[in-house]
Amino acid sequence: MAKRLTNAQQKFYARLRREKKVRDKERLFLAEGLRVARELFSASPNSLVALIQREGFSAPDIAPERTFLASEKQFASLCDVENPQGVIGVFEQPTLSPTALFSNFSQKQSAIAFALDDLQDPGNLGSIIRSAAWFELDALIASAGTADFFNPKVVRSTAGSLFALALYRSDNLVADLRRLKEMGFAIYGATTDGEDYLKTRFAAKSVVVIGNEANGISDGVLATLDAKVRIGGNPRRVESLNAAVSAGILMAKIKERNA
Amino acid sequence: MAKRLTNAQQKFYARLRREKKVRDKERLFLAEGLRVARELFSASPNSLVALIQREGFSAPDIAPERTFLASEKQFASLCDVENPQGVIGVFEQPTLSPTALFSNFSQKQSAIAFALDDLQDPGNLGSIIRSAAWFELDALIASAGTADFFNPKVVRSTAGSLFALALYRSDNLVADLRRLKEMGFAIYGATTDGEDYLKTRFAAKSVVVIGNEANGISDGVLATLDAKVRIGGNPRRVESLNAAVSAGILMAKIKERNA
Repeated sequence: MAKRLTNAQQKFYARLRREKKVRDKERLFLAEGLRVARELFSASPNSLVALIQREGFSAPDIAPERTFLASEKQFASLCDVENPQGVIGVFEQPTLSPTALFSNFSQKQSAIAFALDDLQDPGNLGSIIRSAAWFELDALIASAGTADFFNPKVVRSTAGSLFALALYRSDNLVADLRRLKEMGFAIYGATTDGEDYLKTRFAAKSVVVIGNEANGISDGVLATLDAKVRIGGNPRRVESLNAAVSAGILMAKIKERNA
Repeated sequence: MAKRLTNAQQKFYARLRREKKVRDKERLFLAEGLRVARELFSASPNSLVALIQREGFSAPDIAPERTFLASEKQFASLCDVENPQGVIGVFEQPTLSPTALFSNFSQKQSAIAFALDDLQDPGNLGSIIRSAAWFELDALIASAGTADFFNPKVVRSTAGSLFALALYRSDNLVADLRRLKEMGFAIYGATTDGEDYLKTRFAAKSVVVIGNEANGISDGVLATLDAKVRIGGNPRRVESLNAAVSAGILMAKIKERNA
């Protein structure tokens, strides 16, 4: 029989849902829905801290000893969507220190990372994490101004892939890109005025930067680029592609070249 | 000096925002934000029915004779986002009859269309419209169960590209795909179990079907396919790519082959 969720737990998890600061400090995040919770649990069973089950919803088939029963009202306070499924997982954030990232990369002959320069939209970020997992990128690097990897909307859009990838939040993207250059990485930026990506010969060690949805890549990051690349299309019909779609097309092309 | 928005107008436009049925009947839609309204106006000036300006927001630089001033409260009732910009455009829906679609296609030696089989997420649909405009597809076909092209969330995600593309809503996707086959089109479906898309030789006249986010392509549509295609990746890391990302990758590849 599952334990009942205490009000103290409910308050703590509700803050976790709302506040990045609390998520950062506690290094935890919430994942709504049985399917996503099950996928995350299956990828990393030890990362599951608690499983919250809504009263009246049938018991999930994972981790009964870590399951807590919540009343309708308690449960609603932890949900980001209007018609949630009956389960929320509380997980430890997969974390990567700068040391881990750079020492890992220093040993590789080939590695593909994408870097996000103040990407704002949670749906785009989740979708990029999902693509990066699918194409087995070596890391996803986010600037300080990029949406939080562990925002509930982002988590929802990742389709349970948050443990499938090295995620790294950079305090100083320009400095970290410079360091990667010194380690032999070529840095590319997705822009609307670069060379045709079909002509680009991506290096074995490549970082591709995706910029902010409205403003593109910032000046500091632009100055670190070895090349700007552009996905050909008709800019008279629409100004640009969606950022997550651009990232997906570039990932697919790089994986094709390296296949 | 702009006219004031009447309460009757406000009520009518608020229904247009909320109800697909009203949008369908009136063949109108709302586009929030000066940037999107301006892009749509520039693509099709005659389609602008009215421009609604929030009190206190500076006058938009387009179509003053079709501009109406709305109070804060009136304006809020027409907005789908929490912090809207100060302008909403009311536009005529770009419409394509079956006759127009098929007679247009019957004259072509080459044509690329994508078809959406009950795609549900408005953000995905908007993003696919945007990609289809960028890559200059000949048409986008939506099944009856696909999200409305003119839902405010969809319109927002299209980045002003709604007039850049032939949009066609099919009452019977299976029947329309069969008809396209008879006209010499090859029908492909994006699945997780098809042949590697890098090996596919897409025909000069191709339709690519993107399925529902959770359930993929329906059985009736599967039966019409000439081939299933799959974007290679690691399904142990994540079950699949996002639907809009898959569509973008396939569009980019087809355009590359035909370039």
